[in-house]
Amino acid sequence: MLTVHIISDSIGNTAKDVVDAALVQFSYSDDSYKILKNSNVGTKDKIESILANIEKDDIIVQTLVDKELASYVKELAKIKGIVVIDLLTDILNIFEEKLKVKPENNPGLIRKMGAEYFKRVDALEFAVKYDDGKDINGLKEADIIILGVSRTSKTPLSLYLANRNIKVMNVPIVQDLILPEQLYEVKRKIIGLTNSVEQLNKLRGERLKALGVDHGTDYTDEVQIFEELEYAMDIMEKMGCPVIDVQNKAIEETAELVINIMRERGLEI
Amino acid sequence: MLTVHIISDSIGNTAKDVVDAALVQFSYSDDSYKILKNSNVGTKDKIESILANIEKDDIIVQTLVDKELASYVKELAKIKGIVVIDLLTDILNIFEEKLKVKPENNPGLIRKMGAEYFKRVDALEFAVKYDDGKDINGLKEADIIILGVSRTSKTPLSLYLANRNIKVMNVPIVQDLILPEQLYEVKRKIIGLTNSVEQLNKLRGERLKALGVDHGTDYTDEVQIFEELEYAMDIMEKMGCPVIDVQNKAIEETAELVINIMRERGLEI
Repeated sequence: MLTVHIISDSIGNTAKDVVDAALVQFSYSDDSYKILKNSNVGTKDKIESILANIEKDDIIVQTLVDKELASYVKELAKIKGIVVIDLLTDILNIFEEKLKVKPENNPGLIRKMGAEYFKRVDALEFAVKYDDGKDINGLKEADIIILGVSRTSKTPLSLYLANRNIKVMNVPIVQDLILPEQLYEVKRKIIGLTNSVEQLNKLRGERLKALGVDHGTDYTDEVQIFEELEYAMDIMEKMGCPVIDVQNKAIEETAELVINIMRERGLEI
Repeated sequence: MLTVHIISDSIGNTAKDVVDAALVQFSYSDDSYKILKNSNVGTKDKIESILANIEKDDIIVQTLVDKELASYVKELAKIKGIVVIDLLTDILNIFEEKLKVKPENNPGLIRKMGAEYFKRVDALEFAVKYDDGKDINGLKEADIIILGVSRTSKTPLSLYLANRNIKVMNVPIVQDLILPEQLYEVKRKIIGLTNSVEQLNKLRGERLKALGVDHGTDYTDEVQIFEELEYAMDIMEKMGCPVIDVQNKAIEETAELVINIMRERGLEI
């Protein structure tokens, strides 16, 4: 089994993301590798004790911003013949040269709870508060308003965008239920989501199963879904809002499309 | 101004995270650099047209999984004298050697909407549905239940954990409001959050300002806050749940602590 040891002076999530992005390229079973995170590594002593427990065939992936500590890991690893992937040193050196500024070697600085951080927390709380059209009072404050029928991934999309500091409100389209008039006043902030009848049917079936309902209902009836989607498309057309088909799209892909559309519209996000 | 060009066959978020982690180490003004993302880059033609618009002093950061395309970027960049940081090729080669499996060179595979993906969507929807004690029926299904007074970051923490596929419910502690009895039946899944009087006072003051209230209330009264925290601590003690002080902790730090505590308790998350 391959063991990947992450060594970070912060939490190690950036390294984990890179390792995941690489590992997903291989077909293997889950028990052919494991990833161990060593967080908050800030001293040579700590490095020594970590290295003492690493086998020759393991891999080290490090994101230490302190150059001396980063070199120390490489030095010790070399003696034991362990491969080290250093994700930050090169990039820090290049930035130093280009920006003509010395790096601060301040571990975990990225987590510093500055204005940006609180902006993100605000956006997340906003998304939760105004999820599923629960409260229409957020229309003015929202950067983006998402419309769509049930199971078009409105909630996860709103949260994903909130993580990018964008305030998102989502409003469900339910047949025969009239949308609030105020929506028409904020038309340029609105984006519609749609999906195929087949995928909605499948997703909703799973949804019902999760809720413990094992027979079909209108919710999963294909004709009903078709009519519901038609109804939604009519509304979105009337609003003149762009519509994204989320079928076979991951949340992050849809999010990129949303951001691009909003930027083209000249909205600052 | 330094321009960093990200070239990715997927969206480019992994590269963006690494660049952010590096840039945060430098003191500079926001207009001393910019980051441009080139997503879904999958052909030599596309690479040529991107490279045609990159200046000699810019930096390229690439996460192309296709080795031929990755080499092509380096080849063209070399001719123009542009620095290239390749985040994936080395790591892919090392994994290939260690795992003895060929990489699939399948761009964006990480976004493949498999079981894991739907699990995350489920967890996010769960966190939104059961936020702020709105609905107590999620107690059984929840992996973790978070307790705390207002402004102890219950919501962002729940969402952060949801992104790690963990189902989290959060329940507010409000003085003189009795918590549901059922909570005592799921004690081992409960974690308490606390904060200092000073920080709560500051956070709540900002909260009120955001809500348009410009005078103090009980909500921001230090004596009141102190009593509220005492009341909360009493409850958490009675429950025997671990308590995390979130003062000066970023959400991701608190999340790591929560996960570690739960693993020590033998809960599978």
